[in-house]
Amino acid sequence: MDLRSKIRSIPDFPKKGIVFRDITPLLLDKDAFRYAVDQIVEHYKDRQVTSIFGAEARGFIFGAAVAYVLGVGFIPARKPGKLPYTTSRMDYALEYGMDALEVHNDAIKPGDRTLIVDDLVATGGTAKAKADLVEKEGGIVAGFAFVVELAFLNPRKKLEGYEVLSLISYDSEDSE
Amino acid sequence: MDLRSKIRSIPDFPKKGIVFRDITPLLLDKDAFRYAVDQIVEHYKDRQVTSIFGAEARGFIFGAAVAYVLGVGFIPARKPGKLPYTTSRMDYALEYGMDALEVHNDAIKPGDRTLIVDDLVATGGTAKAKADLVEKEGGIVAGFAFVVELAFLNPRKKLEGYEVLSLISYDSEDSE
Repeated sequence: MDLRSKIRSIPDFPKKGIVFRDITPLLLDKDAFRYAVDQIVEHYKDRQVTSIFGAEARGFIFGAAVAYVLGVGFIPARKPGKLPYTTSRMDYALEYGMDALEVHNDAIKPGDRTLIVDDLVATGGTAKAKADLVEKEGGIVAGFAFVVELAFLNPRKKLEGYEVLSLISYDSEDSE
Repeated sequence: MDLRSKIRSIPDFPKKGIVFRDITPLLLDKDAFRYAVDQIVEHYKDRQVTSIFGAEARGFIFGAAVAYVLGVGFIPARKPGKLPYTTSRMDYALEYGMDALEVHNDAIKPGDRTLIVDDLVATGGTAKAKADLVEKEGGIVAGFAFVVELAFLNPRKKLEGYEVLSLISYDSEDSE
């Protein structure tokens, strides 16, 4: 299955000079969507994963499907103020400014082995913040799974020491 | 499986007088999550569904898992400006003010039978806007599937003529 052909590259979105890697054609193709989920499951199925951690909004898509197939629970991480119960929070730096993610306090128990799933990893800054949040709650990061990796931004440097799976990797901003 | 016991009711969130129905304990329980997805699939599996339509953020969670199990594509609907390709838009009224959803123009083809999935239906206003958007694009609404229905807000009145499945229904704001 050539997953790469299911990614639509959109120049200058959300701003000039950025090539946006649009996963919606992959989601729309039932075979490609199933194949992508199955590849993640195949890689992690013998690694004692006890839950999936996915952040809004696109992290919910692959995260929930992988949780279903692996037969584990799904933990949604959200922007501040969205989760209704008591939360734990992680602030992190973006290219310009700061952002934050929250997770419910009862979502991660000490010793849980949580797989962090997202559609795309760029610099790895947000991904690292998710790992920090899981570990702050006493959980163990079983690894990361991404559909798309912007390898030219070196996300694996920020995620050193963690297991990282990506299904499609781009070597430069404008590569096909 | 008593799905209702997996919903956490949180008084006065997001504002005084509202009881928020929190689905995160259900998501965290692997058996409850799987059962909820399977109930939706069971209901719709013989209804010629060709895609799942889910709106950000929580609609992505059950929508993606149902798409995987039914073996159909997933169509994400998003807030304006989030989708990178050409979009179609539907504006709709909220209790106070307006909101809007967008979907990619190539997501729904004439004659497609799309199942609209969300975690919760309240007044049905947003759900009806999703149906309007699917139909504006030439698609057929195969039905709606919700995990939680706030029946006391009469969402089925707004969704008359459509197939509606809900797994858990509340008769009043403060019922358990």
